[in-house]
Amino acid sequence: MRIALATLNGCDRATFVAALGPLFEGSPWVAEAGFEGRPFRDAHHLHQGLCGAMQRAGSERQLALMRAHPDLAGRLARQGQLTAESSREQAAAGLVGLAPEVIAELEALNATYRQRFGFPFILCARLNNLETVRSALRSRLESTPEAEHRNALAEIEKIAWLRLVDVLEPGATDETSEPAS
Amino acid sequence: MRIALATLNGCDRATFVAALGPLFEGSPWVAEAGFEGRPFRDAHHLHQGLCGAMQRAGSERQLALMRAHPDLAGRLARQGQLTAESSREQAAAGLVGLAPEVIAELEALNATYRQRFGFPFILCARLNNLETVRSALRSRLESTPEAEHRNALAEIEKIAWLRLVDVLEPGATDETSEPAS
Repeated sequence: MRIALATLNGCDRATFVAALGPLFEGSPWVAEAGFEGRPFRDAHHLHQGLCGAMQRAGSERQLALMRAHPDLAGRLARQGQLTAESSREQAAAGLVGLAPEVIAELEALNATYRQRFGFPFILCARLNNLETVRSALRSRLESTPEAEHRNALAEIEKIAWLRLVDVLEPGATDETSEPAS
Repeated sequence: MRIALATLNGCDRATFVAALGPLFEGSPWVAEAGFEGRPFRDAHHLHQGLCGAMQRAGSERQLALMRAHPDLAGRLARQGQLTAESSREQAAAGLVGLAPEVIAELEALNATYRQRFGFPFILCARLNNLETVRSALRSRLESTPEAEHRNALAEIEKIAWLRLVDVLEPGATDETSEPAS
């Protein structure tokens, strides 16, 4: 479903959450909270409003959001059990149809990361490919829990921006414009 | 052409510049300068090396790089005269096949921007769509020359990252790995 900013600024809460809930994996409460910030003057303002709601939430809710993310190239992906958004994103990063030894390597790195930090490794797949996923995983395994909490939220903001770009329909050129004849 | 990081770290200068020159629109001198920073330990380090070379260049060279960028949805795009990279990026942002009045609106905004700042409006197209291009153009028209110089270079860094992700081929899993049997 694509939707114009003007519609998002004027619709009821249920429509707003239906359109923007999926920007934050498994966490429609972010859109619920962001609804309070209307009206939004442009896409950046809307993105800031949603991300602000996420950043202001307690760390327990942030952790639940982080834990709603699937592993990159993980079991859920191979079983076709991702959300539509995650499925498209992992495909765009070239993370489907990998060789068994690459899958095994990524699964081991993902498992180590999850054990070390208590949440999955989160990376905006559409800004990466297999090479950069792998090097980011290796380098972020050396990071601190506090830095990884911040890194995860920063990646979630990038994911949400690209999902918003997918969802937003261009508005009218201006209030008086007519279709070209 | 896709190329592995290990190859980039070991090849001659001409091969390096042929592979990475197109990351910076019409400006192979950035890859020439970045070559001096080898070896690079991962894609991020390589990207930082190239962007560092761009940031250290004088503002005259930076302006030449900025001016090498085509207008978004501009005349060159409609005439099929973009670089291969720009052409794919503008298509990904949904900036082809626009209605005549939308083209006219963007051309007017692009022309005003270019007149005001002395270089074209630069935005990483793959992180945007028509709606967000239009609102970014309108809002950045209100910006200062110094901020727009910085914004342009920041967008060029994002464009270069995504072009690098397209170019980088995954390296071997590790030094001892063999293809799965």
